Amino acid sequence: MNIVDTYKELFVTYLNEKIKVREPINLYEPVQYILQIGGKRLRPVLTIMTCELFNGNAKLAYDAALGVEIFHNFTLVHDDIMDHAPIRRGKETVHQKWDINTGILSGDAMMILAYQCFESYEATIYKKLLKVFNKTALEVCEGQQLDVDFETRNDVTITEYIKMITYKTSVLLAAAMKMGAIIANVNEEEAEKIYEFGLNLGIAFQLQDDYLDTFGNSKEFGKQIGGDILENKKTFLYLKTLEVCDKNDKEQLLNFYKSKFQNNSKIMEVTSLFKKNKIPEIVTNEIEQYSNKAFNILDELSITEEKKRTLKSVGLNLMKRTI
Amino acid sequence: MNIVDTYKELFVTYLNEKIKVREPINLYEPVQYILQIGGKRLRPVLTIMTCELFNGNAKLAYDAALGVEIFHNFTLVHDDIMDHAPIRRGKETVHQKWDINTGILSGDAMMILAYQCFESYEATIYKKLLKVFNKTALEVCEGQQLDVDFETRNDVTITEYIKMITYKTSVLLAAAMKMGAIIANVNEEEAEKIYEFGLNLGIAFQLQDDYLDTFGNSKEFGKQIGGDILENKKTFLYLKTLEVCDKNDKEQLLNFYKSKFQNNSKIMEVTSLFKKNKIPEIVTNEIEQYSNKAFNILDELSITEEKKRTLKSVGLNLMKRTI
Repeated sequence: MNIVDTYKELFVTYLNEKIKVREPINLYEPVQYILQIGGKRLRPVLTIMTCELFNGNAKLAYDAALGVEIFHNFTLVHDDIMDHAPIRRGKETVHQKWDINTGILSGDAMMILAYQCFESYEATIYKKLLKVFNKTALEVCEGQQLDVDFETRNDVTITEYIKMITYKTSVLLAAAMKMGAIIANVNEEEAEKIYEFGLNLGIAFQLQDDYLDTFGNSKEFGKQIGGDILENKKTFLYLKTLEVCDKNDKEQLLNFYKSKFQNNSKIMEVTSLFKKNKIPEIVTNEIEQYSNKAFNILDELSITEEKKRTLKSVGLNLMKRTI
Repeated sequence: MNIVDTYKELFVTYLNEKIKVREPINLYEPVQYILQIGGKRLRPVLTIMTCELFNGNAKLAYDAALGVEIFHNFTLVHDDIMDHAPIRRGKETVHQKWDINTGILSGDAMMILAYQCFESYEATIYKKLLKVFNKTALEVCEGQQLDVDFETRNDVTITEYIKMITYKTSVLLAAAMKMGAIIANVNEEEAEKIYEFGLNLGIAFQLQDDYLDTFGNSKEFGKQIGGDILENKKTFLYLKTLEVCDKNDKEQLLNFYKSKFQNNSKIMEVTSLFKKNKIPEIVTNEIEQYSNKAFNILDELSITEEKKRTLKSVGLNLMKRTI
């Protein structure tokens, strides 16, 4: 078993011990349900692993890891309501299994439960952790709002798009790592570096998600290829094409994205527009830039070379989607 | 101007300075909207006043007061979605003016903004305040869930009902006061006493709300008399009647509450059932017991007699609904 799987297993055991259904049952049953239907547990693993890599006591990182995981799942519960999503991780979403009001209220309770997880830390560490948590949580909400705003906007720039995916996803990965570093009592400068590592890796991961949705292998990717195109999602691929293509291609692409016509020929035609404009090369290059930026930060850290290699291999496995 | 109005005015000035609309506008505009359409500002006033009564620097209490007020307004935004309420304080509710998704997401952001307000306190006070805040916030969610659960239950006891109104309303009033005491650096025992004062006064206030909804004067009460009866709300009056009345009255009352028939004769007939069973006397006695319990706690506090009188007069004015 690799290091990530070991941490994951230990974390899930801890979560199952801590998260019990209590009264009022209708409030806490959905909380336990969403927390136990799985997920990669990537964020809590990053918190625990980072704490240990910085020579902290990994056991002390579990409560922060749990807080981060509960917060992440809270965002899923509320986002699924907003997106009218019936399925998550192959199971019914909370508002689908119960109702929208239950999704709202149990989600609210989860956010508070997330905050409560941090109460085991002594006051100074506690405040440091919560400042990171507050800032990150608010950015995640802002990211979700930007995502909603973009749906009805036709002038989204690549810069704005990167900001949106950064806030919606990367900041929480970065914060999860920074919290591990804080618990290990590293100085602010060092904690900020590991934050930057997580942030850039997170952006690379999200861009790769956009890439694989069109150019991936459906088996490895785990989702249907072309889903973003069918849903007219304004991904990096789409926005970059609009930025670099000629007038004729632009008109075609805009037309495809106006139609709600859902078929394979739409996927094929849009994909070939992307290819014609060298989008696969551009996005691959962009992904490489963000991941290189992440890996270069590792050189600046004051941990052993062996530990840097561990972090790099976790990063590479994340990009290869083997964790 | 009395002391409460002075604090209120100072607090509103502070709130208006702090709460500005920023990007993304669609996230923060609803936050500013709900926070600026008024309200009694009772909770923040209690925080500031309690801090000063315990010889603390009132200026230091404003951030906690703001946190409590933002949290309270967050609960209103989400509760109004759950209750399908179109109007709040004479204005459109957030989900009515924008949409449900905006209500959910802006509400979420408000909860985090509430937590962020406390960051100005040094670590030890910060942690003490947040522990109170976390516990209280979770109880408020539990109170809302109990309220929802009671709608479809026919076996709600008076004890359960008191627990529901305590969690849904009183704990936040009590916590608002306790936070003021914590900021004034009083010891835990003293802080707990002021919490108990707020809690019992809050329960008395809620029971009086039930009483006035049926037996009040519509001008003073500010709402239509008999609203609870028309909505078949299981108030203290209703539950107590079921507990004390004979079989025949019980059958009648249950039948009235089964019907969705909405007219004045329903109000009159249910009211006379309440009167026949001496509910006005019973509830008045109950209100008196809770407010006496609150006022008796004041004797135990180690503040000057003059300050105790101030607290008592604020409590009495609250019960007379002049604040």
